[in-house]
Amino acid sequence: MTIGVLTSGGDAPGMNAAIRAVVRAGLCQGWRVLGIERGYAGLLSGDVREMTSKGVSEVIGRGGTILYTARSEELMTLGGQARAAANCRDMGLDALVVIGGDGSFRGACSLADLGIPVIGIPGTIDLDIACTDYTIGFDTAVNTAMEAIDKIRDTSSSHERCSIVEVMGRSAGYIALYCGISTGAEDILLPENWKDDVQGLIHSVLEGRKSGKKHNLIINAEGVGHSAELAEKIEAATGVESRATILGYLQRGGSPTCRDRIMATRMGVHAVKLIAAGQTGRVVAYKNDDIVDFEIHEALAMQKHIGESWLTMLPLLKR
Amino acid sequence: MTIGVLTSGGDAPGMNAAIRAVVRAGLCQGWRVLGIERGYAGLLSGDVREMTSKGVSEVIGRGGTILYTARSEELMTLGGQARAAANCRDMGLDALVVIGGDGSFRGACSLADLGIPVIGIPGTIDLDIACTDYTIGFDTAVNTAMEAIDKIRDTSSSHERCSIVEVMGRSAGYIALYCGISTGAEDILLPENWKDDVQGLIHSVLEGRKSGKKHNLIINAEGVGHSAELAEKIEAATGVESRATILGYLQRGGSPTCRDRIMATRMGVHAVKLIAAGQTGRVVAYKNDDIVDFEIHEALAMQKHIGESWLTMLPLLKR
Amino acid sequence: MTIGVLTSGGDAPGMNAAIRAVVRAGLCQGWRVLGIERGYAGLLSGDVREMTSKGVSEVIGRGGTILYTARSEELMTLGGQARAAANCRDMGLDALVVIGGDGSFRGACSLADLGIPVIGIPGTIDLDIACTDYTIGFDTAVNTAMEAIDKIRDTSSSHERCSIVEVMGRSAGYIALYCGISTGAEDILLPENWKDDVQGLIHSVLEGRKSGKKHNLIINAEGVGHSAELAEKIEAATGVESRATILGYLQRGGSPTCRDRIMATRMGVHAVKLIAAGQTGRVVAYKNDDIVDFEIHEALAMQKHIGESWLTMLPLLKR
Amino acid sequence: MTIGVLTSGGDAPGMNAAIRAVVRAGLCQGWRVLGIERGYAGLLSGDVREMTSKGVSEVIGRGGTILYTARSEELMTLGGQARAAANCRDMGLDALVVIGGDGSFRGACSLADLGIPVIGIPGTIDLDIACTDYTIGFDTAVNTAMEAIDKIRDTSSSHERCSIVEVMGRSAGYIALYCGISTGAEDILLPENWKDDVQGLIHSVLEGRKSGKKHNLIINAEGVGHSAELAEKIEAATGVESRATILGYLQRGGSPTCRDRIMATRMGVHAVKLIAAGQTGRVVAYKNDDIVDFEIHEALAMQKHIGESWLTMLPLLKR
Repeated sequence: MTIGVLTSGGDAPGMNAAIRAVVRAGLCQGWRVLGIERGYAGLLSGDVREMTSKGVSEVIGRGGTILYTARSEELMTLGGQARAAANCRDMGLDALVVIGGDGSFRGACSLADLGIPVIGIPGTIDLDIACTDYTIGFDTAVNTAMEAIDKIRDTSSSHERCSIVEVMGRSAGYIALYCGISTGAEDILLPENWKDDVQGLIHSVLEGRKSGKKHNLIINAEGVGHSAELAEKIEAATGVESRATILGYLQRGGSPTCRDRIMATRMGVHAVKLIAAGQTGRVVAYKNDDIVDFEIHEALAMQKHIGESWLTMLPLLKR
Repeated sequence: MTIGVLTSGGDAPGMNAAIRAVVRAGLCQGWRVLGIERGYAGLLSGDVREMTSKGVSEVIGRGGTILYTARSEELMTLGGQARAAANCRDMGLDALVVIGGDGSFRGACSLADLGIPVIGIPGTIDLDIACTDYTIGFDTAVNTAMEAIDKIRDTSSSHERCSIVEVMGRSAGYIALYCGISTGAEDILLPENWKDDVQGLIHSVLEGRKSGKKHNLIINAEGVGHSAELAEKIEAATGVESRATILGYLQRGGSPTCRDRIMATRMGVHAVKLIAAGQTGRVVAYKNDDIVDFEIHEALAMQKHIGESWLTMLPLLKR
Repeated sequence: MTIGVLTSGGDAPGMNAAIRAVVRAGLCQGWRVLGIERGYAGLLSGDVREMTSKGVSEVIGRGGTILYTARSEELMTLGGQARAAANCRDMGLDALVVIGGDGSFRGACSLADLGIPVIGIPGTIDLDIACTDYTIGFDTAVNTAMEAIDKIRDTSSSHERCSIVEVMGRSAGYIALYCGISTGAEDILLPENWKDDVQGLIHSVLEGRKSGKKHNLIINAEGVGHSAELAEKIEAATGVESRATILGYLQRGGSPTCRDRIMATRMGVHAVKLIAAGQTGRVVAYKNDDIVDFEIHEALAMQKHIGESWLTMLPLLKR
Repeated sequence: MTIGVLTSGGDAPGMNAAIRAVVRAGLCQGWRVLGIERGYAGLLSGDVREMTSKGVSEVIGRGGTILYTARSEELMTLGGQARAAANCRDMGLDALVVIGGDGSFRGACSLADLGIPVIGIPGTIDLDIACTDYTIGFDTAVNTAMEAIDKIRDTSSSHERCSIVEVMGRSAGYIALYCGISTGAEDILLPENWKDDVQGLIHSVLEGRKSGKKHNLIINAEGVGHSAELAEKIEAATGVESRATILGYLQRGGSPTCRDRIMATRMGVHAVKLIAAGQTGRVVAYKNDDIVDFEIHEALAMQKHIGESWLTMLPLLKR
């Protein structure tokens, strides 16, 4: 039997740990494992290499993805999908493991519809895949961002400033939420519920100063954006020196945390188990502290929201 | 209303975040919050201070516990328990929040039996509290240990050595398990299933060399111990230079990870909610990705084991 | 005898270690030590507190400055200087220790001219004080930036991108130089010698791809700036996906490195020694692996350049 | 022209950066560069590989040494030295670059005496090479140890303990000295001046408690040793709970700091420059903030001591 593995979309720390687990557990089954480079782009161009056990030693702790990743426009077309499916058959793939986010899963879904046996593993720093309570890379990303914010807080506090720090998350605010709580931020702006209430932020800064706070920290999600503009408005209205920092790409890199290495390993092993059991067209997920799986179309149809208990908790901590 | 909060037993990163959450959420209720120093020892000696919102600012990211901690012999006696309960009444405590491990919960249980309204929050790096899938401090401890082992691996690999690294965990092997998987260790020795199979380790080292491995990594739990002795035996039998390192107390300290800060915050807020709802004699827990609670006697009677799926996964990754 | 200590200008990691050394070494002399808050602003407004040995315990490892810092417009005026000098006399200061950068030293110089016995300690992440081979904060800043760039490199490499990372340094390129060499960057843009040679960068990216490089890394100094614009130009000319990241304020914070803690401690102790020996109007400096001092006017008149050997080294490493 | 490069003795972070610099600067000269594995052992066994520019990309940030290292008994014999020199000639080496410590330099010296053109680069975490103010690996080692001690301090302080932390350094106390100052330790035990004054330590712990200190921190060098025994004696005499931690091998690993990457790079480039200028039998060194070189016999004859100013500084900070 032969299986393929690829990483697709934005890279996430822990993807290498997932590749390693798929490769080693696959080899243990006596299978051949092919690594497809650059995601679906490599599937279309045939950039494939044989994976060995030794080839994935020393990668569990490395950031990025040794298989490279890309976003493929062509796979969004019917022609591209057909060609990709044909390539899978030409390579003799009995299964294709796709490590990536929502977009990558939609690509996998279209291949599944063309008869390719796919398995998805959720790999994205955004935590925005509805069927799972965890996505590989999230823990590393929030720790990286949190540590950066801890540093910004030092200088913000020394200068008695207001700091606005923008973290990743275009449509989902999980990174902002976790960073905000873990750094003790006064305000957290989420794409899910931001109502352009600049006046509220200004009020919050003024209240903080009244109660003796030496600095203010606002965590802003990329999906809300306009951090520099917000800083200007706050400074103009409050007289408190305000500065914006956009953390950017550093949130995607770095050696994965223990949690990401372990989740990735467990999910990779589970993917191989599913294939060995003849189950494809499924997405691996973490639910109720266990590794489970869902039918891929059902998984993509699910919805996810930040729970109410998170939002009611925030004002209690601010005081 | 007046509540007290204390940390007890071995310290764990994130205890300060839990204290902060209890204090701030408690003050939000309009309550008075007292910090009891040195765990039950301070309850017996009356070392108590008023907690303010400002007093817990800047502590969310700090290791250790600002309330100090200790193990109290006296609280294990009936006389000590009676005196502690009397002190709670003298201080006018309407509830006592105990942050600690199994031993601390047994102390809390005895106070509950004497009519003191207690709430337990699981704080221990060992993850060995049966009622909960998470205990505050575990994530920081495993990341600290993992990063140390990553470093040891560099030098072990440069010298083509066999390294045995001993991590904390007297009766529970969770830290060893997580560290072993996340560092790609060849062998993991757990107190739960170690059968003194030194011959198996020797075999494993020899097999690794045959398959071209440049170094061997064995993670050993404190409860198994004898790391230096194991290193000697392996070196004698295989001729491979072998070295033991005992990580020790550094695993207890350090700024808490994002996960620990957030879990501690959620658990602290939940404890205050329980008190506000008139519910005491309960232990806060993390189950099925949610913060819940259990009756304290029931919680202490529960059992916990490392799941079979963890153990069957290990040989797949070693190859 | 009474001495004062303040931090001024941009904050730098290690300032707290310097404050601690001045306080403890000063107290050892039997002196009274006053901490002046917010730099010269606090000298003008009289925001002063008594420093104790205990008050500076636990601060050696903390980022920022416990005395706060600010830039004071008023001290740039003759009236402000006169008032600051008068306040020094009113407080009975026998010496004033100023921890800061070039601008702060110019302020100290003007006070010296008015008869105030000042001592300067070089504290700035920019390494741009001519009289000294080291300034407190530089080592922490370059390590923080380097670690962030290492992470960006992971994702840049996974996506086979060109990354432009902008680090601090308005007129001095030391941070960019050190970050560039330590991360193996292909190009380093320094304010000291940047000639707007965008074509050279484009050529460098194309050459890198020809020789098989999977990503390109360009470190840019704040003084050169225009990082987003450069990324656009490179992408347009080469077809290589290019992204800019501005690291920003996180470079100023964080727990100081060993080097910064030790340099700050040595410099703080030296400042007290100078005062005890009746020597003021001097700046502490690090020269030839030793802590020395210079007359403050002479120190400010010195010039500093990035040595030729640094620049000739760069092309050798790029290959 | 052909040159060889090897790493020998204990590994040190930054050795890879030095290898990379030697390889790239050598290739820039148009030379062939051979990597000799396992130090002198590989020179004797002929374990040699061709080095390429691509082969050293991505290694600047990696701990350990990609060329492996070992201690060779055989090279200490006249026969071994003759055979090693013969092998150098057989390989056609026009120069041999040896990256290592004092012992490795003595080996290089014996080869130089047999007519082999050698260049030494100081690579050891111990800083104990007399001719140079810096040795590659020291900065990473002290930062790693310091960060571990900062964590131990958290838990030590929470339990109000006395902690004895043993760091590397058999005959030289530089690591202990730097770690002790940077963590604010109350006492530092150096092999250079330790007089078995346990009574002094006990006195120091008691004094600390009297003045209100919540914990005591003693940094001990490997060359002094007996940390567990010291902890027992202190606990017995003072009643203060005392714990020993031996940091061990983790001090040798980890991604090198900025300083180590840069020093290693500068030294590697300098080594190639020397060879290009026909100068061999020399050791690269860092003196007076510059990269210089010394004749190898002279270098080995030099002596080095911890300066008096370091020792007189310690009591001032303790107060």
